[in-house]
Amino acid sequence: MKGIELIPVEGFPEVRPGDGLAEMVADAVGDVLRSGDVLVVTHKVMSKAEGRLVDLRSVEPSALAKEYASRWGKDPRQIEVVLRESRRIVRMDRGVVISETRHGFVCANAGVDASNVPGGDTVCLLPVDPDGSAAKLREALKKQLDIEVPVVVSDSFGRAWRFGITDIAIGVAGMDPLADYRGQNDPHGYPMEASVLAVADELAAAAELVMGKTDGVPIAIVRGYAYGRGAGSGRDLLMPPERDMFR
Amino acid sequence: MKGIELIPVEGFPEVRPGDGLAEMVADAVGDVLRSGDVLVVTHKVMSKAEGRLVDLRSVEPSALAKEYASRWGKDPRQIEVVLRESRRIVRMDRGVVISETRHGFVCANAGVDASNVPGGDTVCLLPVDPDGSAAKLREALKKQLDIEVPVVVSDSFGRAWRFGITDIAIGVAGMDPLADYRGQNDPHGYPMEASVLAVADELAAAAELVMGKTDGVPIAIVRGYAYGRGAGSGRDLLMPPERDMFR
Repeated sequence: MKGIELIPVEGFPEVRPGDGLAEMVADAVGDVLRSGDVLVVTHKVMSKAEGRLVDLRSVEPSALAKEYASRWGKDPRQIEVVLRESRRIVRMDRGVVISETRHGFVCANAGVDASNVPGGDTVCLLPVDPDGSAAKLREALKKQLDIEVPVVVSDSFGRAWRFGITDIAIGVAGMDPLADYRGQNDPHGYPMEASVLAVADELAAAAELVMGKTDGVPIAIVRGYAYGRGAGSGRDLLMPPERDMFR
Repeated sequence: MKGIELIPVEGFPEVRPGDGLAEMVADAVGDVLRSGDVLVVTHKVMSKAEGRLVDLRSVEPSALAKEYASRWGKDPRQIEVVLRESRRIVRMDRGVVISETRHGFVCANAGVDASNVPGGDTVCLLPVDPDGSAAKLREALKKQLDIEVPVVVSDSFGRAWRFGITDIAIGVAGMDPLADYRGQNDPHGYPMEASVLAVADELAAAAELVMGKTDGVPIAIVRGYAYGRGAGSGRDLLMPPERDMFR
């Protein structure tokens, strides 16, 4: 097996609502991107281009948001946005809301985030349809650059039982996000029944290593990874409710 | 920022209990490894070298192991080994045991694994002290190759709410496994209060992309990652019980 390169795309401009993200990405990666690469894009630039920003001054907090925020010293308007972005609360303690978003992600604060957003009173939401955002960018790059690459949309999530956040894939287009070894045998002939690898999550995590949090690098190219061709989506990475032992 | 290379170490021989792992690793990476690299090693080669293998024919299952195995069509001896490797059961359903190991990892089947182990009746346990195993390998490589590199010991863990496994760091030596951005501001001046990145987990995940499950690549080199110098350990990646919302 050959090695893999993780290439940061530097100098990407600040994205504003309504910006043509595909053109901006094409400009930024046009000289570098090759067929066979995987493009990893943090959701924040997609959310911004899609106008998924909320001015907190326009938000009227509910009774629950007010109560919870006052108890934990949080901004009630931000808690309200989190509640609105949730379809089910999983845990609510210590000022944190861990909930299931409408997409089915279980994460802290429903993916609502005030970092890397201009304006002190603005928060950023997850894209409405991260798979759709990935597919749209993939199609646009194909048209503009004549290169077909998988697109992985990433976000930083916490994990149960482990400290620290890692980047994972919330949207996927143009590749199978899973590498399924079930039915294959290991080199000793043992069937690998539990071996389904969430490779799109691993690609997102790998890409984060060249992005950093303060460097303004929202895009990375993964070169040399033999991704599984297939029409998978980020939804394949959600635990089906009937198999979920932690609902 | 420069890019990162993920380099698989191919042709690594099968490891047997009592083998001198450090010599084997030094032989395998001596021509490639450079100062500044991070070495990622799957725990399985360490477990094997350390004799952390159990012949199931020597295991007498307890009543609980028999009961649970018979209900779900599992091997009662393997369930018994899982129970013995656990200090607390978190979930026990559908043939799976999710437990906290003596190290403090919460994972499926206490890390007990029958894949990639020779002999149909043998299972592999996690190293007794993965941080110690990492430190020992790091020290030995320093002596033999005169190169000082961080060592990350990896394993594949499942995640709550997400489908598929990813590689994470169960042992770390020679680097800070976390990149802590708390107290820093983002490019817009917003304080990044929640931003502690579990970079050792991301390094393990990245390395998995060049390892694969059936390719017999238990070691990878990460080149070009500016890791945090420091005396961190894999324990830093465990959620402290008092902050754990999913106990």
